[in-house]
Amino acid sequence: MGRIKLEEIDTRAPGALQKEQVKLETAGIISELNELQNLLYAESKHSVLVVLQGMDASGKDGLIRKVFGNLNPQGVMVHSFKVPTAEELGHDFLWRIHKNAPAKGMIQLFNRSHYEDILVTRVHNLCDKETAYKRMRAINDFEWLLAEHNNTTILKFYLHISEKEQSLRLNERLDDKTKQWKYNESDFAEAKLWPEYRKVYEDCFEECNKIPWTIVPADQNWYKEYIVAKKLKDALSALKMRYPGLKKA
Amino acid sequence: MGRIKLEEIDTRAPGALQKEQVKLETAGIISELNELQNLLYAESKHSVLVVLQGMDASGKDGLIRKVFGNLNPQGVMVHSFKVPTAEELGHDFLWRIHKNAPAKGMIQLFNRSHYEDILVTRVHNLCDKETAYKRMRAINDFEWLLAEHNNTTILKFYLHISEKEQSLRLNERLDDKTKQWKYNESDFAEAKLWPEYRKVYEDCFEECNKIPWTIVPADQNWYKEYIVAKKLKDALSALKMRYPGLKKA
Repeated sequence: MGRIKLEEIDTRAPGALQKEQVKLETAGIISELNELQNLLYAESKHSVLVVLQGMDASGKDGLIRKVFGNLNPQGVMVHSFKVPTAEELGHDFLWRIHKNAPAKGMIQLFNRSHYEDILVTRVHNLCDKETAYKRMRAINDFEWLLAEHNNTTILKFYLHISEKEQSLRLNERLDDKTKQWKYNESDFAEAKLWPEYRKVYEDCFEECNKIPWTIVPADQNWYKEYIVAKKLKDALSALKMRYPGLKKA
Repeated sequence: MGRIKLEEIDTRAPGALQKEQVKLETAGIISELNELQNLLYAESKHSVLVVLQGMDASGKDGLIRKVFGNLNPQGVMVHSFKVPTAEELGHDFLWRIHKNAPAKGMIQLFNRSHYEDILVTRVHNLCDKETAYKRMRAINDFEWLLAEHNNTTILKFYLHISEKEQSLRLNERLDDKTKQWKYNESDFAEAKLWPEYRKVYEDCFEECNKIPWTIVPADQNWYKEYIVAKKLKDALSALKMRYPGLKKA
């Protein structure tokens, strides 16, 4: 596979798709997810890590609410990674990530992730290219550790929105009282760095592909939710899980 | 370097060494360590991980007391890894290890370690050979992560005692009231598995040598303490640390 070029990938659903029909299908998938997650928890042999990355306003929070909001919260954990604390900075960049890796039986969502350490940091020159490439190798090894030694299925999603859609959404944050809390002064400045972000994301898709990425067209929420829910359902179904039955005395 | 064969390595100090003179030298080294550790803590750029492995009664506890007991406890942490808890078993075998990795400025001692997951488990057939080799690759990657991404100097010591010395010490545990608490019913049964332990240790020295091991002749405490203290001093000295001076406003 050649290098992923984000500019060549559509941010919208294929034209032939009917929004209402897809939404119905997504609802069906989500109720199946409920059953599969219960099984995952009961069997406790596998774990699932869902990594969500994307530009500001690409709809990570909404996705979490819509696709994961109806699952049993006992088996689903969400961790939002912010700027590292002083304690976290005292350790290697994967230390805080590993602490939050899913136990068997659990689905763990990362709202942003270890990938920020090679994305935002690179764009703002807090991490040189050599360090970034060393980190990407470490990320491959680390994800492999989880997959190989804790039966962790890792699903990595890049929510792919267009600059135009992002601009619309950022302006909405300014106007809508229920969304103003999400607005950061830096949002518009960050949005200007789009070409730089595109480049470092593309490097990351290329280097950290031992466990592959899914690029999710994300301008329309209904399509984004469908793709992620479907991918999760397929991954869980592939585990061929079974209820363990009565424990032996 | 060929495969390390433990049977070919002496468990005692070279004959020419004078015990009293070595003890004096060790005392000097330990006072230098005090200064170096203070510098490590003040500079907070590097971290040190000391891994102690060895058969029962090889003298890990005594070593910790003698060599590390006089350092500033604020900058030294010891973690003894026991049989994994239910929570720890829910994760990959390195999860609990990574949580306890040293922050910058710190010396972390592991009394037993991630290596037990390829030693005691292998000897007792809780881990097949294929899994053991996968784990050893994961250990190499993990130690490299700490070294490369948190400036961690990793010193791995195998305390090498003879079967005869072990037997003497285990019997002492039965007789000495101050040592009986250390006795486990399984100690003598484990001691019978010596050839099996020797084999899995040798595999581990061969596979997990991206960061090298030091085999420490450990029948005599004074010599064991000298070797470990010296190695630690040399490693800290090589870091070329400096006091950072006044923080900028």
